[in-house]
Amino acid sequence: MTGITGNGLARFSLNQETIRQWPLPALADGCAAAGVTRVGLWRAPVQEYGVERAAALMRDSGLSVTSLCRGGFFTAVEPAARAAALDDNRAAVDEAAALGAPTLLLVSGGLADGERDLVPARQRVADAVAELAPYAAARGVRLAIEPLHPMYASDRCVVSTLGQALDIAERFPAEQVGVVVDTYHLWWDERVPAGIVRAGEGGRIACFQVADWVTPLPEGVLVGRGQLGDGCVDLRGFREQVDAAGYRGDIEVEIFNAGLWARDGREVLAEVVDRYRRHVL
Amino acid sequence: MTGITGNGLARFSLNQETIRQWPLPALADGCAAAGVTRVGLWRAPVQEYGVERAAALMRDSGLSVTSLCRGGFFTAVEPAARAAALDDNRAAVDEAAALGAPTLLLVSGGLADGERDLVPARQRVADAVAELAPYAAARGVRLAIEPLHPMYASDRCVVSTLGQALDIAERFPAEQVGVVVDTYHLWWDERVPAGIVRAGEGGRIACFQVADWVTPLPEGVLVGRGQLGDGCVDLRGFREQVDAAGYRGDIEVEIFNAGLWARDGREVLAEVVDRYRRHVL
Repeated sequence: MTGITGNGLARFSLNQETIRQWPLPALADGCAAAGVTRVGLWRAPVQEYGVERAAALMRDSGLSVTSLCRGGFFTAVEPAARAAALDDNRAAVDEAAALGAPTLLLVSGGLADGERDLVPARQRVADAVAELAPYAAARGVRLAIEPLHPMYASDRCVVSTLGQALDIAERFPAEQVGVVVDTYHLWWDERVPAGIVRAGEGGRIACFQVADWVTPLPEGVLVGRGQLGDGCVDLRGFREQVDAAGYRGDIEVEIFNAGLWARDGREVLAEVVDRYRRHVL
Repeated sequence: MTGITGNGLARFSLNQETIRQWPLPALADGCAAAGVTRVGLWRAPVQEYGVERAAALMRDSGLSVTSLCRGGFFTAVEPAARAAALDDNRAAVDEAAALGAPTLLLVSGGLADGERDLVPARQRVADAVAELAPYAAARGVRLAIEPLHPMYASDRCVVSTLGQALDIAERFPAEQVGVVVDTYHLWWDERVPAGIVRAGEGGRIACFQVADWVTPLPEGVLVGRGQLGDGCVDLRGFREQVDAAGYRGDIEVEIFNAGLWARDGREVLAEVVDRYRRHVL
Protein backbone atom coordinates (compact mmCIF):
# COMPACT_ATOMS: atom_id res chain seq x y z
CA MET A 1 0.00 0.00 0.00
CA THR A 2 2.66 2.46 -1.08
CA GLY A 3 1.91 6.11 -0.67
CA ILE A 4 -0.82 6.06 1.92
CA THR A 5 -0.31 8.69 4.56
CA GLY A 6 -2.95 10.27 6.75
CA ASN A 7 -6.11 10.53 4.68
CA GLY A 8 -4.76 8.19 2.01
CA LEU A 9 -4.72 11.03 -0.52
CA ALA A 10 -0.97 11.76 -0.58
CA ARG A 11 -0.78 10.78 -4.25
CA PHE A 12 -4.39 11.47 -5.22
CA SER A 13 -4.99 14.02 -7.93
CA LEU A 14 -8.41 15.02 -9.21
CA ASN A 15 -8.53 15.64 -12.92
CA GLN A 16 -11.00 18.45 -13.27
CA GLU A 17 -12.93 16.80 -16.11
CA THR A 18 -14.15 14.24 -13.59
CA ILE A 19 -16.26 17.02 -12.08
CA ARG A 20 -16.54 19.29 -15.09
CA GLN A 21 -19.68 20.91 -13.66
CA TRP A 22 -17.36 22.77 -11.29
CA PRO A 23 -15.92 26.08 -12.48
CA LEU A 24 -12.36 26.60 -11.23
CA PRO A 25 -13.30 28.41 -7.98
CA ALA A 26 -15.73 25.63 -7.08
CA LEU A 27 -13.00 23.11 -7.87
CA ALA A 28 -10.61 24.91 -5.54
CA ASP A 29 -13.18 25.12 -2.74
CA GLY A 30 -14.39 21.57 -3.18
CA CYS A 31 -10.88 20.13 -3.13
CA ALA A 32 -9.95 22.14 -0.04
CA ALA A 33 -13.06 20.89 1.75
CA ALA A 34 -12.25 17.28 0.85
CA GLY A 35 -8.56 17.42 1.75
CA VAL A 36 -7.52 17.07 -1.89
CA THR A 37 -4.32 18.99 -2.71
CA ARG A 38 -3.63 18.06 -6.31
CA VAL A 39 -5.53 18.60 -9.52
CA GLY A 40 -5.10 17.96 -13.21
CA LEU A 41 -6.42 20.83 -15.31
CA TRP A 42 -7.68 21.26 -18.85
CA ARG A 43 -6.73 24.04 -21.19
CA ALA A 44 -10.19 25.29 -22.14
CA PRO A 45 -11.47 26.09 -18.63
CA VAL A 46 -8.07 27.53 -17.68
CA GLN A 47 -8.04 29.79 -20.72
CA GLU A 48 -11.59 30.85 -20.07
CA TYR A 49 -10.76 31.79 -16.49
CA GLY A 50 -7.42 33.30 -17.45
CA VAL A 51 -4.15 31.42 -17.16
CA GLU A 52 -2.42 33.68 -14.64
CA ARG A 53 -5.62 34.05 -12.68
CA ALA A 54 -6.07 30.28 -12.60
CA ALA A 55 -2.47 29.84 -11.48
CA ALA A 56 -3.02 32.31 -8.64
CA LEU A 57 -6.27 30.63 -7.64
CA MET A 58 -4.60 27.24 -7.45
CA ARG A 59 -1.65 28.65 -5.52
CA ASP A 60 -3.84 30.56 -3.08
CA SER A 61 -5.95 27.44 -2.53
CA GLY A 62 -2.94 25.30 -1.76
CA LEU A 63 -3.47 23.18 -4.85
CA SER A 64 -0.68 21.72 -6.96
CA VAL A 65 -1.38 21.25 -10.65
CA THR A 66 -0.15 17.77 -11.54
CA SER A 67 -0.78 17.91 -15.26
CA LEU A 68 -2.31 19.98 -18.01
CA CYS A 69 -4.54 18.32 -20.59
CA ARG A 70 -3.81 18.50 -23.37
CA GLY A 71 -1.48 19.23 -26.25
CA GLY A 72 -1.08 17.11 -29.34
CA PHE A 73 -3.40 16.81 -32.33
CA PHE A 74 -0.40 17.38 -34.52
CA THR A 75 -0.88 14.72 -37.17
CA ALA A 76 -1.85 17.16 -39.92
CA VAL A 77 0.00 16.73 -43.21
CA GLU A 78 -0.55 20.16 -44.67
CA PRO A 79 2.31 22.50 -43.63
CA ALA A 80 0.17 25.43 -42.48
CA ALA A 81 -2.04 23.19 -40.35
CA ARG A 82 1.03 21.51 -38.97
CA ALA A 83 2.64 24.82 -38.07
CA ALA A 84 -0.57 26.01 -36.43
CA ALA A 85 -0.73 22.83 -34.36
CA LEU A 86 2.84 23.31 -33.20
CA ASP A 87 2.14 26.94 -32.31
CA ASP A 88 -0.83 25.83 -30.27
CA ASN A 89 1.29 23.22 -28.53
CA ARG A 90 3.91 25.81 -27.62
CA ALA A 91 1.09 27.85 -26.10
CA ALA A 92 0.03 24.76 -24.14
CA VAL A 93 3.58 24.41 -22.82
CA ASP A 94 3.54 28.06 -21.76
CA GLU A 95 0.25 27.52 -19.96
CA ALA A 96 1.56 24.43 -18.18
CA ALA A 97 4.64 26.40 -17.08
CA ALA A 98 2.49 29.25 -15.82
CA LEU A 99 0.39 26.82 -13.79
CA GLY A 100 3.46 25.09 -12.38
CA ALA A 101 2.29 21.85 -13.97
CA PRO A 102 5.27 19.58 -14.52
CA THR A 103 3.59 17.59 -17.27
CA LEU A 104 1.73 18.36 -20.50
CA LEU A 105 -0.31 15.45 -21.78
CA LEU A 106 -0.27 14.85 -25.51
CA VAL A 107 -3.10 13.17 -27.40
CA SER A 108 -1.56 12.73 -30.79
CA GLY A 109 -4.47 13.25 -33.18
CA GLY A 110 -5.92 10.93 -35.78
CA LEU A 111 -5.36 10.06 -39.40
CA ALA A 112 -5.32 12.82 -41.97
CA ASP A 113 -8.29 13.09 -44.33
CA GLY A 114 -8.28 10.11 -46.65
CA GLU A 115 -5.24 8.56 -44.98
CA ARG A 116 -5.31 4.77 -44.55
CA ASP A 117 -1.97 4.08 -42.93
CA LEU A 118 -1.22 4.60 -39.26
CA VAL A 119 2.54 4.24 -39.59
CA PRO A 120 3.32 7.59 -41.29
CA ALA A 121 0.81 9.29 -39.01
CA ARG A 122 2.75 8.03 -36.00
CA GLN A 123 5.93 9.26 -37.60
CA ARG A 124 4.41 12.74 -37.81
CA VAL A 125 3.70 12.52 -34.09
CA ALA A 126 7.35 11.72 -33.43
CA ASP A 127 8.40 14.63 -35.67
CA ALA A 128 6.17 17.03 -33.80
CA VAL A 129 7.42 15.83 -30.43
CA ALA A 130 10.97 16.42 -31.68
CA GLU A 131 10.11 20.04 -32.38
CA LEU A 132 8.24 20.53 -29.13
CA ALA A 133 10.43 18.72 -26.61
CA PRO A 134 13.30 21.23 -26.40
CA TYR A 135 10.85 24.11 -26.14
CA ALA A 136 9.04 22.36 -23.28
CA ALA A 137 12.23 21.30 -21.54
CA ALA A 138 13.47 24.89 -21.54
CA ARG A 139 10.32 25.82 -19.66
CA GLY A 140 10.44 22.98 -17.15
CA VAL A 141 7.57 21.05 -18.70
CA ARG A 142 7.77 17.38 -19.52
CA LEU A 143 5.76 16.01 -22.41
CA ALA A 144 3.72 12.86 -21.78
CA ILE A 145 2.57 10.85 -24.78
CA GLU A 146 -0.77 9.26 -24.07
CA PRO A 147 -1.82 6.08 -25.84
CA LEU A 148 -5.59 6.04 -26.30
CA HIS A 149 -7.78 2.97 -26.73
CA PRO A 150 -7.73 1.61 -30.31
CA MET A 151 -11.34 2.71 -30.76
CA TYR A 152 -9.92 6.25 -31.10
CA ALA A 153 -7.16 5.34 -33.55
CA SER A 154 -8.71 6.87 -36.64
CA ASP A 155 -9.98 10.20 -35.41
CA ARG A 156 -8.30 11.06 -32.14
CA CYS A 157 -5.07 9.26 -31.42
CA VAL A 158 -2.96 7.12 -33.73
CA VAL A 159 -0.91 6.05 -30.72
CA SER A 160 -2.94 3.12 -29.38
CA THR A 161 -0.60 1.12 -27.20
CA LEU A 162 1.89 1.75 -24.44
CA GLY A 163 4.55 0.20 -26.64
CA GLN A 164 3.91 2.70 -29.44
CA ALA A 165 4.04 5.58 -26.97
CA LEU A 166 7.34 4.31 -25.60
CA ASP A 167 8.72 3.82 -29.09
CA ILE A 168 8.27 7.54 -29.62
CA ALA A 169 9.22 8.74 -26.14
CA GLU A 170 12.45 6.78 -26.07
CA ARG A 171 13.85 8.83 -28.95
CA PHE A 172 14.17 11.71 -26.46
CA PRO A 173 15.73 12.20 -23.04
CA ALA A 174 13.53 10.72 -20.31
CA GLU A 175 13.31 14.01 -18.44
CA GLN A 176 11.86 15.63 -21.57
CA VAL A 177 9.39 13.03 -22.82
CA GLY A 178 7.49 10.35 -20.92
CA VAL A 179 4.26 8.43 -21.36
CA VAL A 180 0.84 8.31 -19.75
CA VAL A 181 -0.42 5.06 -18.27
CA ASP A 182 -4.22 5.33 -18.26
CA THR A 183 -6.11 2.27 -17.12
CA TYR A 184 -9.14 3.05 -19.28
CA HIS A 185 -7.14 2.99 -22.49
CA LEU A 186 -4.79 0.13 -21.73
CA TRP A 187 -6.61 -2.43 -19.62
CA TRP A 188 -7.39 -4.81 -22.50
CA ASP A 189 -3.79 -5.17 -23.74
CA GLU A 190 -1.86 -8.25 -22.62
CA ARG A 191 1.42 -6.48 -23.36
CA VAL A 192 0.86 -3.76 -20.78
CA PRO A 193 2.56 -5.48 -17.83
CA ALA A 194 5.77 -5.76 -19.86
CA GLY A 195 5.27 -2.21 -21.14
CA ILE A 196 4.99 -0.85 -17.60
CA VAL A 197 8.23 -2.59 -16.66
CA ARG A 198 9.91 -1.11 -19.74
CA ALA A 199 8.51 2.33 -18.96
CA GLY A 200 9.63 2.10 -15.36
CA GLU A 201 13.15 1.01 -16.24
CA GLY A 202 13.50 4.00 -18.50
CA GLY A 203 11.94 6.41 -16.02
CA ARG A 204 9.22 7.14 -18.57
CA ILE A 205 6.01 7.02 -16.53
CA ALA A 206 5.12 10.70 -16.50
CA CYS A 207 1.49 10.31 -15.50
CA PHE A 208 -0.75 7.58 -14.13
CA GLN A 209 -4.47 8.03 -14.67
CA VAL A 210 -7.30 5.81 -13.48
CA ALA A 211 -10.84 5.24 -14.70
CA ASP A 212 -12.86 2.07 -15.01
CA TRP A 213 -14.24 0.40 -18.16
CA VAL A 214 -18.00 0.03 -18.35
CA THR A 215 -20.44 -0.83 -21.14
CA PRO A 216 -22.50 -0.09 -23.12
CA LEU A 217 -20.38 2.64 -24.64
CA PRO A 218 -22.26 5.83 -25.46
CA GLU A 219 -22.48 7.42 -28.91
CA GLY A 220 -19.09 8.87 -29.79
CA VAL A 221 -17.49 6.73 -27.05
CA LEU A 222 -16.05 9.75 -25.26
CA VAL A 223 -18.03 10.14 -22.07
CA GLY A 224 -18.67 6.58 -20.99
CA ARG A 225 -15.81 6.00 -18.59
CA GLY A 226 -16.64 4.22 -15.39
CA GLN A 227 -16.49 5.35 -11.78
CA LEU A 228 -13.68 3.50 -10.01
CA GLY A 229 -14.90 0.04 -9.08
CA ASP A 230 -17.95 0.07 -11.36
CA GLY A 231 -16.21 -1.75 -14.20
CA CYS A 232 -13.89 -4.59 -15.07
CA VAL A 233 -10.45 -3.02 -14.70
CA ASP A 234 -8.14 -4.34 -12.02
CA LEU A 235 -7.26 -0.83 -10.85
CA ARG A 236 -5.28 -1.93 -7.82
CA GLY A 237 -3.34 -4.36 -9.96
CA PHE A 238 -2.40 -1.51 -12.31
CA ARG A 239 -1.34 0.71 -9.40
CA GLU A 240 0.76 -2.07 -7.95
CA GLN A 241 2.43 -2.57 -11.31
CA VAL A 242 3.37 1.08 -11.78
CA ASP A 243 4.57 1.17 -8.17
CA ALA A 244 6.66 -1.94 -8.71
CA ALA A 245 8.12 -0.25 -11.79
CA GLY A 246 9.38 2.55 -9.57
CA TYR A 247 6.69 5.14 -10.14
CA ARG A 248 6.17 7.37 -7.12
CA GLY A 249 4.11 10.13 -8.71
CA ASP A 250 0.50 11.20 -8.65
CA ILE A 251 -2.47 8.95 -9.24
CA GLU A 252 -4.85 11.08 -11.24
CA VAL A 253 -8.53 10.21 -11.38
CA GLU A 254 -9.87 11.17 -14.78
CA ILE A 255 -13.40 9.94 -15.47
CA PHE A 256 -15.46 11.31 -18.35
CA ASN A 257 -18.96 10.27 -17.36
CA ALA A 258 -22.15 12.16 -18.06
CA GLY A 259 -23.79 10.60 -15.03
CA LEU A 260 -21.15 12.03 -12.69
CA TRP A 261 -21.44 15.44 -14.36
CA ALA A 262 -25.16 15.58 -13.60
CA ARG A 263 -24.65 15.21 -9.86
CA ASP A 264 -23.58 17.52 -7.05
CA GLY A 265 -19.82 18.00 -7.31
CA ARG A 266 -19.04 17.52 -3.63
CA GLU A 267 -21.02 14.31 -3.55
CA VAL A 268 -19.13 13.08 -6.62
CA LEU A 269 -15.76 13.94 -5.11
CA ALA A 270 -16.60 12.16 -1.87
CA GLU A 271 -17.58 9.10 -3.87
CA VAL A 272 -14.44 9.28 -6.01
CA VAL A 273 -12.24 9.52 -2.91
CA ASP A 274 -14.04 6.58 -1.31
CA ARG A 275 -13.72 4.48 -4.46
CA TYR A 276 -10.06 5.46 -4.78
CA ARG A 277 -9.35 4.22 -1.28
CA ARG A 278 -11.24 0.99 -1.86
CA HIS A 279 -10.20 0.11 -5.40
CA VAL A 280 -6.88 1.81 -6.12
CA LEU A 281 -4.89 1.99 -2.87
CA MET B 1 -5.87 -9.13 -58.77
CA THR B 2 -6.17 -12.76 -57.68
CA GLY B 3 -9.53 -14.40 -57.96
CA ILE B 4 -11.24 -12.15 -60.44
CA THR B 5 -13.15 -14.07 -63.04
CA GLY B 6 -16.02 -12.82 -65.13
CA ASN B 7 -18.02 -10.46 -62.97
CA GLY B 8 -15.26 -10.19 -60.38
CA LEU B 9 -17.43 -11.96 -57.82
CA ALA B 10 -15.78 -15.39 -57.83
CA ARG B 11 -14.75 -15.01 -54.19
CA PHE B 12 -17.43 -12.55 -53.12
CA SER B 13 -19.75 -13.63 -50.35
CA LEU B 14 -22.55 -11.52 -48.94
CA ASN B 15 -22.99 -11.84 -45.22
CA GLN B 16 -26.72 -11.55 -44.74
CA GLU B 17 -26.44 -9.06 -41.88
CA THR B 18 -25.19 -6.52 -44.40
CA ILE B 19 -28.74 -6.45 -45.80
CA ARG B 20 -30.64 -7.63 -42.76
CA GLN B 21 -33.85 -6.06 -44.07
CA TRP B 22 -34.04 -8.98 -46.49
CA PRO B 23 -35.82 -12.13 -45.32
CA LEU B 24 -34.16 -15.29 -46.64
CA PRO B 25 -36.27 -15.55 -49.83
CA ALA B 26 -35.48 -11.94 -50.72
CA LEU B 27 -31.82 -12.63 -50.04
CA ALA B 28 -31.91 -15.58 -52.41
CA ASP B 29 -33.72 -13.61 -55.12
CA GLY B 30 -31.54 -10.53 -54.69
CA CYS B 31 -28.32 -12.49 -54.87
CA ALA B 32 -29.47 -14.38 -57.95
CA ALA B 33 -30.37 -11.11 -59.65
CA ALA B 34 -26.96 -9.63 -58.85
CA GLY B 35 -24.91 -12.65 -59.86
CA VAL B 36 -23.90 -13.36 -56.27
CA THR B 37 -23.51 -17.05 -55.52
CA ARG B 38 -22.24 -17.11 -51.93
CA VAL B 39 -23.71 -15.97 -48.68
CA GLY B 40 -22.81 -15.99 -45.01
CA LEU B 41 -25.84 -16.68 -42.83
CA TRP B 42 -26.83 -15.98 -39.22
CA ARG B 43 -28.43 -18.44 -36.87
CA ALA B 44 -31.46 -16.41 -35.81
CA PRO B 45 -32.97 -15.81 -39.27
CA VAL B 46 -32.13 -19.36 -40.30
CA GLN B 47 -33.83 -20.80 -37.22
CA GLU B 48 -36.83 -18.57 -37.76
CA TYR B 49 -37.18 -19.74 -41.36
CA GLY B 50 -36.38 -23.34 -40.46
CA VAL B 51 -32.93 -24.83 -40.88
CA GLU B 52 -33.80 -27.52 -43.42
CA ARG B 53 -36.07 -25.14 -45.29
CA ALA B 54 -33.29 -22.53 -45.41
CA ALA B 55 -30.82 -25.14 -46.63
CA ALA B 56 -33.23 -26.13 -49.40
CA LEU B 57 -33.85 -22.51 -50.36
CA MET B 58 -30.14 -21.82 -50.64
CA ARG B 59 -29.57 -25.00 -52.63
CA ASP B 60 -32.50 -24.35 -54.97
CA SER B 61 -31.28 -20.79 -55.52
CA GLY B 62 -27.78 -21.92 -56.41
CA LEU B 63 -26.29 -20.26 -53.34
CA SER B 64 -23.40 -21.68 -51.34
CA VAL B 65 -23.31 -20.89 -47.63
CA THR B 66 -19.76 -19.82 -46.82
CA SER B 67 -20.13 -19.47 -43.07
CA LEU B 68 -22.62 -19.51 -40.25
CA CYS B 69 -22.54 -16.76 -37.63
CA ARG B 70 -22.18 -17.48 -34.86
CA GLY B 71 -21.26 -19.82 -32.07
CA GLY B 72 -19.23 -18.94 -29.03
CA PHE B 73 -20.28 -16.95 -25.97
CA PHE B 74 -18.90 -19.74 -23.86
CA THR B 75 -16.96 -17.83 -21.23
CA ALA B 76 -19.41 -18.54 -18.42
CA VAL B 77 -17.88 -19.83 -15.18
CA GLU B 78 -20.93 -21.45 -13.68
CA PRO B 79 -21.13 -25.14 -14.75
CA ALA B 80 -24.78 -25.13 -15.79
CA ALA B 81 -24.36 -21.98 -17.90
CA ARG B 82 -21.23 -23.44 -19.40
CA ALA B 83 -22.97 -26.67 -20.29
CA ALA B 84 -25.88 -24.78 -21.81
CA ALA B 85 -23.47 -22.72 -23.94
CA LEU B 86 -21.77 -25.86 -25.20
CA ASP B 87 -25.14 -27.45 -26.00
CA ASP B 88 -26.07 -24.36 -27.96
CA ASN B 89 -22.76 -24.49 -29.80
CA ARG B 90 -23.31 -28.10 -30.75
CA ALA B 91 -26.68 -27.03 -32.15
CA ALA B 92 -24.89 -24.32 -34.13
CA VAL B 93 -22.53 -26.92 -35.56
CA ASP B 94 -25.52 -29.05 -36.56
CA GLU B 95 -27.10 -26.06 -38.27
CA ALA B 96 -23.89 -25.27 -40.14
CA ALA B 97 -23.66 -28.87 -41.29
CA ALA B 98 -27.28 -28.83 -42.44
CA LEU B 99 -26.64 -25.67 -44.45
CA GLY B 100 -23.47 -27.09 -45.96
CA ALA B 101 -21.51 -24.23 -44.41
CA PRO B 102 -17.89 -25.29 -43.98
CA THR B 103 -17.21 -22.80 -41.21
CA LEU B 104 -18.84 -21.82 -37.92
CA LEU B 105 -17.67 -18.47 -36.61
CA LEU B 106 -17.05 -18.18 -32.89
CA VAL B 107 -17.33 -14.95 -30.94
CA SER B 108 -15.95 -15.98 -27.61
CA GLY B 109 -18.02 -13.97 -25.15
CA GLY B 110 -16.94 -11.47 -22.52
CA LEU B 111 -15.80 -11.46 -18.94
CA ALA B 112 -17.92 -13.19 -16.31
CA ASP B 113 -19.83 -11.01 -13.86
CA GLY B 114 -17.35 -9.28 -11.60
CA GLU B 115 -14.35 -10.76 -13.37
CA ARG B 116 -11.36 -8.45 -13.86
CA ASP B 117 -8.86 -10.69 -15.61
CA LEU B 118 -8.97 -11.56 -19.30
CA VAL B 119 -6.43 -14.37 -19.08
CA PRO B 120 -8.59 -17.00 -17.35
CA ALA B 121 -11.54 -15.96 -19.53
CA ARG B 122 -9.46 -16.72 -22.62
CA GLN B 123 -8.51 -20.05 -21.09
CA ARG B 124 -12.20 -20.89 -20.78
CA VAL B 125 -12.55 -20.13 -24.49
CA ALA B 126 -9.78 -22.57 -25.27
CA ASP B 127 -11.40 -25.19 -23.02
CA ALA B 128 -14.72 -24.77 -24.79
CA VAL B 129 -13.11 -25.03 -28.22
CA ALA B 130 -11.43 -28.24 -27.06
CA GLU B 131 -14.85 -29.71 -26.27
CA LEU B 132 -16.45 -28.46 -29.45
CA ALA B 133 -13.77 -29.09 -32.09
CA PRO B 134 -14.08 -32.91 -32.34
CA TYR B 135 -17.87 -32.63 -32.49
CA ALA B 136 -17.60 -30.09 -35.30
CA ALA B 137 -14.93 -32.01 -37.16
CA ALA B 138 -17.07 -35.14 -37.13
CA ARG B 139 -19.76 -33.12 -38.92
CA GLY B 140 -17.47 -31.50 -41.46
CA VAL B 141 -17.59 -28.07 -39.85
CA ARG B 142 -14.49 -26.06 -39.09
CA LEU B 143 -14.50 -23.67 -36.17
CA ALA B 144 -13.20 -20.15 -36.80
CA ILE B 145 -12.17 -18.08 -33.78
CA GLU B 146 -12.91 -14.42 -34.42
CA PRO B 147 -10.92 -11.72 -32.66
CA LEU B 148 -13.12 -8.68 -32.09
CA HIS B 149 -11.94 -5.11 -31.63
CA PRO B 150 -10.71 -4.39 -28.08
CA MET B 151 -13.73 -2.15 -27.51
CA TYR B 152 -15.72 -5.40 -27.17
CA ALA B 153 -13.26 -7.11 -24.81
CA SER B 154 -15.32 -6.84 -21.64
CA ASP B 155 -18.80 -7.77 -22.77
CA ARG B 156 -18.59 -9.59 -26.08
CA CYS B 157 -15.25 -11.10 -26.94
CA VAL B 158 -12.20 -11.55 -24.72
CA VAL B 159 -10.21 -12.51 -27.81
CA SER B 160 -9.10 -9.12 -29.14
CA THR B 161 -6.17 -9.77 -31.43
CA LEU B 162 -5.28 -12.10 -34.25
CA GLY B 163 -2.38 -13.34 -32.16
CA GLN B 164 -4.67 -14.35 -29.31
CA ALA B 165 -7.00 -16.14 -31.72
CA LEU B 166 -4.06 -18.02 -33.23
CA ASP B 167 -2.72 -18.90 -29.78
CA ILE B 168 -5.98 -20.77 -29.17
CA ALA B 169 -6.48 -22.17 -32.68
CA GLU B 170 -2.98 -23.60 -32.87
CA ARG B 171 -3.72 -25.99 -30.01
CA PHE B 172 -5.92 -27.92 -32.44
CA PRO B 173 -5.50 -29.42 -35.92
CA ALA B 174 -5.71 -26.71 -38.60
CA GLU B 175 -8.51 -28.48 -40.40
CA GLN B 176 -10.58 -28.33 -37.21
CA VAL B 177 -9.93 -24.81 -35.94
CA GLY B 178 -8.96 -21.66 -37.81
CA VAL B 179 -9.33 -17.92 -37.30
CA VAL B 180 -11.33 -15.09 -38.82
CA VAL B 181 -9.51 -12.12 -40.28
CA ASP B 182 -11.99 -9.23 -40.18
CA THR B 183 -10.68 -5.87 -41.30
CA TYR B 184 -13.03 -3.93 -39.03
CA HIS B 185 -11.71 -5.55 -35.90
CA LEU B 186 -8.03 -5.74 -36.77
CA TRP B 187 -7.13 -2.72 -38.87
CA TRP B 188 -5.59 -0.71 -36.01
CA ASP B 189 -3.10 -3.39 -34.90
CA GLU B 190 0.47 -3.11 -36.11
CA ARG B 191 1.02 -6.81 -35.42
CA VAL B 192 -1.58 -7.93 -37.96
CA PRO B 193 0.72 -8.25 -40.98
CA ALA B 194 2.92 -10.68 -39.05
CA GLY B 195 -0.18 -12.40 -37.72
CA ILE B 196 -1.54 -12.93 -41.21
CA VAL B 197 1.75 -14.49 -42.28
CA ARG B 198 1.65 -16.78 -39.23
CA ALA B 199 -1.98 -17.68 -39.92
CA GLY B 200 -1.22 -18.37 -43.56
CA GLU B 201 1.77 -20.58 -42.81
CA GLY B 202 -0.36 -22.67 -40.50
CA GLY B 203 -3.31 -22.81 -42.89
CA ARG B 204 -5.42 -21.10 -40.26
CA ILE B 205 -7.30 -18.44 -42.19
CA ALA B 206 -10.79 -19.90 -42.14
CA CYS B 207 -12.68 -16.74 -43.05
CA PHE B 208 -11.85 -13.29 -44.39
CA GLN B 209 -14.42 -10.59 -43.72
CA VAL B 210 -14.35 -6.98 -44.86
CA ALA B 211 -15.96 -3.82 -43.53
CA ASP B 212 -14.62 -0.31 -43.21
CA TRP B 213 -13.98 1.74 -40.05
CA VAL B 214 -15.92 4.98 -39.75
CA THR B 215 -16.59 7.40 -36.90
CA PRO B 216 -18.37 8.59 -34.86
CA LEU B 217 -19.24 5.24 -33.36
CA PRO B 218 -22.90 4.82 -32.43
CA GLU B 219 -24.19 4.01 -28.95
CA GLY B 220 -23.32 0.42 -28.15
CA VAL B 221 -20.73 0.44 -30.98
CA LEU B 222 -22.35 -2.49 -32.75
CA VAL B 223 -23.96 -1.09 -35.86
CA GLY B 224 -21.50 1.57 -36.99
CA ARG B 225 -19.41 -0.34 -39.49
CA GLY B 226 -18.58 1.44 -42.68
CA GLN B 227 -19.51 0.68 -46.27
CA LEU B 228 -16.40 -0.41 -48.16
CA GLY B 229 -14.38 2.64 -49.10
CA ASP B 230 -16.14 5.03 -46.73
CA GLY B 231 -13.56 4.68 -43.98
CA CYS B 232 -9.86 4.49 -43.23
CA VAL B 233 -9.10 0.80 -43.68
CA ASP B 234 -6.75 -0.24 -46.45
CA LEU B 235 -9.08 -3.01 -47.59
CA ARG B 236 -7.12 -3.89 -50.70
CA GLY B 237 -3.93 -4.04 -48.65
CA PHE B 238 -5.58 -6.53 -46.30
CA ARG B 239 -6.84 -8.65 -49.19
CA GLU B 240 -3.38 -8.66 -50.75
CA GLN B 241 -1.88 -9.76 -47.46
CA VAL B 242 -4.26 -12.69 -46.97
CA ASP B 243 -3.72 -13.66 -50.60
CA ALA B 244 0.05 -13.49 -50.16
CA ALA B 245 -0.36 -15.72 -47.11
CA GLY B 246 -1.93 -18.35 -49.34
CA TYR B 247 -5.59 -17.75 -48.63
CA ARG B 248 -7.79 -18.60 -51.61
CA GLY B 249 -11.17 -18.62 -49.90
CA ASP B 250 -14.19 -16.35 -49.85
CA ILE B 251 -14.14 -12.65 -49.19
CA GLU B 252 -17.21 -12.05 -47.10
CA VAL B 253 -18.67 -8.58 -46.84
CA GLU B 254 -20.16 -8.12 -43.39
CA ILE B 255 -21.25 -4.58 -42.61
CA PHE B 256 -23.49 -3.78 -39.64
CA ASN B 257 -24.76 -0.35 -40.55
CA ALA B 258 -28.15 1.08 -39.70
CA GLY B 259 -27.99 3.37 -42.74
CA LEU B 260 -27.62 0.44 -45.12
CA TRP B 261 -30.47 -1.39 -43.39
CA ALA B 262 -32.83 1.51 -44.03
CA ARG B 263 -32.35 1.39 -47.81
CA ASP B 264 -33.65 -0.81 -50.60
CA GLY B 265 -31.79 -4.11 -50.45
CA ARG B 266 -31.05 -4.38 -54.16
CA GLU B 267 -29.66 -0.88 -54.21
CA VAL B 268 -27.45 -1.71 -51.23
CA LEU B 269 -26.19 -4.91 -52.83
CA ALA B 270 -25.36 -3.11 -56.07
CA GLU B 271 -23.40 -0.53 -54.08
CA VAL B 272 -21.62 -3.20 -52.05
CA VAL B 273 -20.60 -5.04 -55.21
CA ASP B 274 -19.37 -1.83 -56.80
CA ARG B 275 -17.39 -0.89 -53.71
CA TYR B 276 -15.98 -4.41 -53.47
CA ARG B 277 -14.67 -4.19 -57.02
CA ARG B 278 -13.17 -0.75 -56.42
CA HIS B 279 -11.75 -1.12 -52.93
CA VAL B 280 -11.11 -4.81 -52.30
CA LEU B 281 -10.16 -6.46 -55.62
